[in-house]
Amino acid sequence: MQLKRFFIKDLGLELSKTYELKQEDYNYIVNVMRLRLNDTLSIANNTGYDFLCQIVSITKNGITIKVLEKEENLSESKVNVTVCQALVKGDKFEFITQKIVELGVNTLIPFTSTFTIVKDNTQKTERLNKIAEQASSQCGRSKTLNITEIVSIKDLPKLLNSYDLVLLAYEKANFSLQTVLKNSKNCKNIAIIVGSEGGFSESEVTYLEKELKNLKTVSLGLRILRSETASIVLTSAVMYEMGELS
Amino acid sequence: MQLKRFFIKDLGLELSKTYELKQEDYNYIVNVMRLRLNDTLSIANNTGYDFLCQIVSITKNGITIKVLEKEENLSESKVNVTVCQALVKGDKFEFITQKIVELGVNTLIPFTSTFTIVKDNTQKTERLNKIAEQASSQCGRSKTLNITEIVSIKDLPKLLNSYDLVLLAYEKANFSLQTVLKNSKNCKNIAIIVGSEGGFSESEVTYLEKELKNLKTVSLGLRILRSETASIVLTSAVMYEMGELS
Repeated sequence: MQLKRFFIKDLGLELSKTYELKQEDYNYIVNVMRLRLNDTLSIANNTGYDFLCQIVSITKNGITIKVLEKEENLSESKVNVTVCQALVKGDKFEFITQKIVELGVNTLIPFTSTFTIVKDNTQKTERLNKIAEQASSQCGRSKTLNITEIVSIKDLPKLLNSYDLVLLAYEKANFSLQTVLKNSKNCKNIAIIVGSEGGFSESEVTYLEKELKNLKTVSLGLRILRSETASIVLTSAVMYEMGELS
Repeated sequence: MQLKRFFIKDLGLELSKTYELKQEDYNYIVNVMRLRLNDTLSIANNTGYDFLCQIVSITKNGITIKVLEKEENLSESKVNVTVCQALVKGDKFEFITQKIVELGVNTLIPFTSTFTIVKDNTQKTERLNKIAEQASSQCGRSKTLNITEIVSIKDLPKLLNSYDLVLLAYEKANFSLQTVLKNSKNCKNIAIIVGSEGGFSESEVTYLEKELKNLKTVSLGLRILRSETASIVLTSAVMYEMGELS
């Protein structure tokens, strides 16, 4: 049977030591993963390592694990990708969160802009972090997505100034995505910016172009992609071109 | 205001003629799109053309439109892509349907295999067709997705024999996706095959490799993608490399 994987972000782990887990982790491990006394599982804690652990004690309220082995996790992306996603309606933000974790993205920056209808999803932060952690476990990563606080589009330049390349999905784009990516093979830090259902105002695009020297506006083709599709497709293209899908 | 788009698959349309629409189309146009007498809308009917129509009569039960203009739709993909997707649980199949329409895919072949848990989703066919038609309208296409009946994995070779390239997403792949796609720039007909949550048995892969001379198994990288993510990501990579995202 395949080793079950579990993510506990804030748990420091050392070889041969034992740890009592929190109630919420107990619930997931016992009731969802259905693990029992003496079972082993792989725990990742956002450090780049996987820890092979054994359940050494289990009661109605508590679960204690012992770390048997520590191993470097090699499934993290070699290119550091950040997705800046305008707030979108419904469960689309959750969907984007899950999919970009699978694609190997490190950071998600939610932002508001003139045409975003949703202005706040902070009440969702805990749920989004949980979705990201579960996606990390499932896809075999040892790190989870860093979801920042919601910023204004005006704040993006200072957050993205150190990136080698910033791609802005924009229907009136100046650059071909293929041309840009094929010329960016050596980039180590790439950010993508995707707007909400309402897109960007022209002055927002002008502002970002002026403030971010490494920004390229790119079109995603003749078909109009929904916001959540644009994020996944653009991230896929970046990961594909950077050799992360091979 | 942007022209609203609507899809009616089986409606033959000719310039200057008037047509009475069905009750379900009436409901969508009046209650969802909120169009009124004399409003114009763009209707696509799976022919490769868009028809600019005007609402010339509207009653409680019926709506009549007149065709004012006919225009070729240029947003269809120049490469013919078919997605063969193993049946997956829940709303994932709907999600795949919507996203591959946006990406420009022409045909979706649902299939069962040894490790598919869902064995039948025929009761969903009407809903899937509606999702595909709405996605076509929204993304600006004039054609919708042809969703075939559910087949067995054993039937795929005879359905895919005429394709230039068949990509099978498989974790023990022989080929690099990038290498395969960069050598396939002239392909006009490409199929991709993506398994269910349970993946493929080795004998299924051997069978497909034997029966399909143009099949290449490709890995999608070090992270394990969910079935629905694999479909979208692999389709994105194909469309990207074929120049359909620029």
